[in-house]
Amino acid sequence: MPSTQASLSPGILSLLPMFYVAWSDGILSPTEMSMIHSKIHQYDFLTDDDRAYLISWTDPSRSPSKAIFAQWIREITRHGAQLPESDRHGLAQLGWEIATKISDGSNKQKWMSEATRSSLLEMEKILGVEHDDSSALILNRFRTDREHYQRDPASQIDTKALHEFLEGDGKVMRDRLRALLSDPSFSTEYRATKKEYRDWALEKCQVLADQGYGLLALPEYVGGQDNMTDYASVFELLAHYDGSLTIKFGVQFGLFALSILNLGTREQHEKYLHRAGTLALKGCFAMTETGHGSNVRGLETTATYDKESDSFIIHTPRRQAGKEYIGNALHGEAAVVFAQLIVAGESHGVHALYVDLVDADGNDLPGIQREDCGYKMGLNGVDNGRLYFDQVAVPRDQLLSRFGRVSDDGTYHSDIENPNKRFFVMLGTLVGGRICVASAGLAMAKNALHIATAYAHKRRQFGPSDDEPETLLIDYPSHQMRLIPRIAEAYGIGFALTDLSARYMDDAEKNKKIESLAAGLKARATWFATSTIQECREACGGAGYIWENGISQLKADSDIFTTFEGDNTVLIQLVAKGLLSDFSREFHDEGFRAVFRRLMQQANTSITEKNLLNVRKTDAAHLLDPVFHREALRFREKHLLHTVALRMRRYIKQKLSSTDAFLRCQNHMIALAHAYVDRVILKAYHKALETCPMEIQPTLRHCAEIYALDMISRHKDYYLEHGYMEGSKTKAVRRILRQRIQSLKGSSLALVEAWGIPHSCLQSELVQ
Amino acid sequence: MPSTQASLSPGILSLLPMFYVAWSDGILSPTEMSMIHSKIHQYDFLTDDDRAYLISWTDPSRSPSKAIFAQWIREITRHGAQLPESDRHGLAQLGWEIATKISDGSNKQKWMSEATRSSLLEMEKILGVEHDDSSALILNRFRTDREHYQRDPASQIDTKALHEFLEGDGKVMRDRLRALLSDPSFSTEYRATKKEYRDWALEKCQVLADQGYGLLALPEYVGGQDNMTDYASVFELLAHYDGSLTIKFGVQFGLFALSILNLGTREQHEKYLHRAGTLALKGCFAMTETGHGSNVRGLETTATYDKESDSFIIHTPRRQAGKEYIGNALHGEAAVVFAQLIVAGESHGVHALYVDLVDADGNDLPGIQREDCGYKMGLNGVDNGRLYFDQVAVPRDQLLSRFGRVSDDGTYHSDIENPNKRFFVMLGTLVGGRICVASAGLAMAKNALHIATAYAHKRRQFGPSDDEPETLLIDYPSHQMRLIPRIAEAYGIGFALTDLSARYMDDAEKNKKIESLAAGLKARATWFATSTIQECREACGGAGYIWENGISQLKADSDIFTTFEGDNTVLIQLVAKGLLSDFSREFHDEGFRAVFRRLMQQANTSITEKNLLNVRKTDAAHLLDPVFHREALRFREKHLLHTVALRMRRYIKQKLSSTDAFLRCQNHMIALAHAYVDRVILKAYHKALETCPMEIQPTLRHCAEIYALDMISRHKDYYLEHGYMEGSKTKAVRRILRQRIQSLKGSSLALVEAWGIPHSCLQSELVQ
Repeated sequence: MPSTQASLSPGILSLLPMFYVAWSDGILSPTEMSMIHSKIHQYDFLTDDDRAYLISWTDPSRSPSKAIFAQWIREITRHGAQLPESDRHGLAQLGWEIATKISDGSNKQKWMSEATRSSLLEMEKILGVEHDDSSALILNRFRTDREHYQRDPASQIDTKALHEFLEGDGKVMRDRLRALLSDPSFSTEYRATKKEYRDWALEKCQVLADQGYGLLALPEYVGGQDNMTDYASVFELLAHYDGSLTIKFGVQFGLFALSILNLGTREQHEKYLHRAGTLALKGCFAMTETGHGSNVRGLETTATYDKESDSFIIHTPRRQAGKEYIGNALHGEAAVVFAQLIVAGESHGVHALYVDLVDADGNDLPGIQREDCGYKMGLNGVDNGRLYFDQVAVPRDQLLSRFGRVSDDGTYHSDIENPNKRFFVMLGTLVGGRICVASAGLAMAKNALHIATAYAHKRRQFGPSDDEPETLLIDYPSHQMRLIPRIAEAYGIGFALTDLSARYMDDAEKNKKIESLAAGLKARATWFATSTIQECREACGGAGYIWENGISQLKADSDIFTTFEGDNTVLIQLVAKGLLSDFSREFHDEGFRAVFRRLMQQANTSITEKNLLNVRKTDAAHLLDPVFHREALRFREKHLLHTVALRMRRYIKQKLSSTDAFLRCQNHMIALAHAYVDRVILKAYHKALETCPMEIQPTLRHCAEIYALDMISRHKDYYLEHGYMEGSKTKAVRRILRQRIQSLKGSSLALVEAWGIPHSCLQSELVQ
Repeated sequence: MPSTQASLSPGILSLLPMFYVAWSDGILSPTEMSMIHSKIHQYDFLTDDDRAYLISWTDPSRSPSKAIFAQWIREITRHGAQLPESDRHGLAQLGWEIATKISDGSNKQKWMSEATRSSLLEMEKILGVEHDDSSALILNRFRTDREHYQRDPASQIDTKALHEFLEGDGKVMRDRLRALLSDPSFSTEYRATKKEYRDWALEKCQVLADQGYGLLALPEYVGGQDNMTDYASVFELLAHYDGSLTIKFGVQFGLFALSILNLGTREQHEKYLHRAGTLALKGCFAMTETGHGSNVRGLETTATYDKESDSFIIHTPRRQAGKEYIGNALHGEAAVVFAQLIVAGESHGVHALYVDLVDADGNDLPGIQREDCGYKMGLNGVDNGRLYFDQVAVPRDQLLSRFGRVSDDGTYHSDIENPNKRFFVMLGTLVGGRICVASAGLAMAKNALHIATAYAHKRRQFGPSDDEPETLLIDYPSHQMRLIPRIAEAYGIGFALTDLSARYMDDAEKNKKIESLAAGLKARATWFATSTIQECREACGGAGYIWENGISQLKADSDIFTTFEGDNTVLIQLVAKGLLSDFSREFHDEGFRAVFRRLMQQANTSITEKNLLNVRKTDAAHLLDPVFHREALRFREKHLLHTVALRMRRYIKQKLSSTDAFLRCQNHMIALAHAYVDRVILKAYHKALETCPMEIQPTLRHCAEIYALDMISRHKDYYLEHGYMEGSKTKAVRRILRQRIQSLKGSSLALVEAWGIPHSCLQSELVQ
């Protein structure tokens, strides 16, 4: 009977990692056993002694003793610890690397050969340890010791290169703002009363304006820089720092100034924009009403043209029609007010007007009534309030007239004849705001992930025994599951938003598709922020609840992001409607039914023929193949699209009103929109992989794999229900996902550090 | 070709609801068509004219015109609207009711017969409209008009009977406290600074103490009432009112006083408890340390017996060993301090000591250092702080000595010899606290559900067209999905907690099983609170974010519930460990492997034989059968238990340390614990159904169905992966769940009103 021996040969070591896992993980079947025997006899890289030793350990009735196990793991760790991280993808690879490394001159050639490596990979398959839970744990054990992450968290990946890739252009401006936010005058403290918090936010807004940040997005002819990209970067960076300041800044320089820019004429720009961009004129964006948030078309405030005084009379017909949640409502000196425009008794739909709220002395003008919304869950530095108008007269030239105006003779004119189309063009101004809110939500989620990941790398709780150190939180599989897939998803959402911004800035692309994408990513990024910050709070335990540790304020401030600038549930349905109408348009000519049959046939063929093997394919190469990921995500989206289209068409054909038909399909449509956004993010990930520098590619690929497998895994019920995968495959997906997550834990801290959030912005005692 | 006709006969009307849905929902196959034809000819309750009319509408190439459709729906609605709600379970039933009602004398008998009814039910199956989405929508349309819910939300169910059943015993005390909380002196306002909020909470705590609420749970010999049930009710009711006051109350009268009760001797009770129960003595419960929260056994504070002075020296050896997040830390005059007890150089593990913090003049004693934890996400009315001890001497008789004491000769004694066992007995005192926190979390979730449901019944947004009223939020299927399954789950968790409390109060039951159940339900109820309050905030849109609408404070205050009194992730693993050790114990004698094989065989048999039909059974009777629900939930739990047991055993046998083995199975174990809690809640639901008054049974059964189907649906990936259901069945589950949710929407407001939350406690402008 074999016993421990002084030193193990390359041949034995080449197979030892696999044997270790096979033994610790289960019992081999007789068939597998006989295959292993015959392979061991065939392998020319083994000596006879090697063969005897290895075969002795294939007898299921003779389990290795504790001492043998200890020797095995010691030997593997000893050699394995010296190998660079990237070389250890699996047990066979590990064994091969060790053997190659310790074999001497004459045998080295044989060991280095591809044939030898293939033989080992083949054995890995036979033993069934290819991507086993235990493999992951053991590989991991060789990789690092518990202290490692703490000592040198960033050693595994090129944090600097990754950070620079993420920064893209505009680094100079970003670094300048980072420096400002790290200035002692920007240090933060808890501000308990809304008064002190609001005063602070206004003061800091002025500091930003004085530095020129308010003019960034405005045209050069009003003193601006016409640089929307930099404006968006400022907004995003501010979100790392303070939610109230971010929103205050966005209301003034985004909603207020940019709505004048988008809806006003050149003369109006010249009249208002420089003052707006320097905060010499404080303004609000008064769209939402108490009774009408999402349904902007149903706003009730009226702007009735009065020919006699040549002015518009702004009026709030009932309390529910008051302007609600308006940021800057208390500090504001003017407002862009959205109202039903009525000219000569005829309504022309919602239009925006520039309305003064105060006279030259700063006193409220007659007919203006303001009300404080009071305290909120968060963002208490923003002076949200309600505005009511009692027959307030506004000169004719204050109608923002780019898309509709009243001429000298008192008649209404617009270059866009269709009122429907006009409405959507005017609302297009919201798209930029949605992209900004999405970025801000993601930024705040990143703060939380940074804090929670740093904490997980230093906080210990419970341990194997009294004389060993307690276990780091990040070493718990459940804790890895909480944080790492979210880090991967944050990267993906970031790439998708970068893509979207670039397309949005490109005027040629300003179309329905971009609006739909912005709606979808706004919903996704902000829901992601809400759930991620929540998870991070819990992952930090009691410490996460304390204000000075930074997470609680992120939660309170970002919570409303899922609602404002478009309620997520409404936006996600817009996305689905967009997809459906694209689909209908595409096939309008060919005849719906025919096309539909063809598509369903294709879908079914792809399951039954092409995927006949795929439905139960569980090897790692396939499961990690980006093509598999793309196809799986596309299948879910397309299948949902086709089935919802079929249902809608059937209902409509069967005389249901489109509202009723839509209500019947509502949950189905929401599922479709989510599937679409999932795929868009993966696409952006893959695009980033193509363009990123070589040195960060492996890391990003690893993250992309986790993102894709996580999405597949979350929707495995769908894949199983529709026969796209079998149970054996969804189980394999879960296993390999877990393994990929586990093997990223060492780099997880470097991944959050690469975001480059200034330390001062984290405002957390938990990050040191 | 048939056209609209003046008035439809009973025969036509009996089948019309089904025909309407069949036509609006899809196309019938030729086989189905021929079956319908032959049935129509057989049915003796149809006249020849009826037959001709109906058969003319089975030709798929001739779709009914818009006018015909309109007539059909008009006729069905006209007759259907007059029928009582309970009669309309399905389309066949609806048709039958209508026909029975309008048929005249001579035919009435035939219509009333069971044979006729069966024939119609048979047709419903043939047409495949049994529980179709469209059926639900159409049935619903007959049932109510949009205004209905608002006018008379509670008409459907017996709110009073339901409320009384939920109240159980102790109604007098509960109503007395409800009256107090509705007193103007208890009206709430936003308290911005922690100082004013903390002062308020302390003052209100004194009011409660003056009313005798602090003594409820204490023994009669110290002036108490020995009534733990009433104490728990007070805690739960307070949670409806204000989180800070609830926790302040719980720290003083629960943690502080009850730990003295549970860990101290009769003499110690007599010395401290009356003062504690009247708030004459303000105290804290100092267990958690900065470095050790969940791992209580690893606490570092020491209590070293000094024979010379006959006292214990309490000491904080390093900053991380300071007592952390301690409620009442700033107001407290004394503390129950948990420390490692060292006597004559030997450690006896964690023990609790009564420690004075102040001298007779109220000044801090030497060696005591306090630190304010500062602002938190919520609960800012609770003075959480840190306590550090620098060699503080405490007289020997202040060691709470029920389970361990130092005798006059300076030696340690305990009736529980095993230190492990002693530790768990002492920690048993936490179980009551966990039950209370679970109830408080549930109470706060109920507040949020009440507010959001009331809002959904009055808030409108978007609508079919400009001249119709906008649609109520509750009429959107997506909105129903957000709220209604959560209402059903809240009921279920409530029943489970009531059961648990009753068993906990029964001394005979104080065992490991109760501890495990308390851990599981604490985790479940508090996670439910966090996610439900979040969902309700979002479901109220911007209004949910405003403090005066009541949800934002619920979120901020309850958020920490998932962490304190035992971190949920740790607790849920305790549950799994308990299940595993029960399992091992149960089969210890018989030999694990043999038993295991038998069990797996049973499980497989139950899938392959008994369930061979069940895996694809999709009729409503089966899908709504409580036996199906119970078995499905049990399958998931047992299957997870058996597989995790197998894995653990294998790892242990293969020489892994139990810690490593456990880490490998961690996510698997967490899944098991959730499955167990899911089933426990269903069991409590079914038990409540057996004991509740007849008049509320249908409502509770409806809720139980939604709960069970929701749990099955959420885990359908598991059922599909393990072959317990086929895709056709999981789809049918989704459909019938949606239909059951839809048909509960009219009663949803009554269901939240039945909780009896005083209006003053909702503190929301959204509920009128």
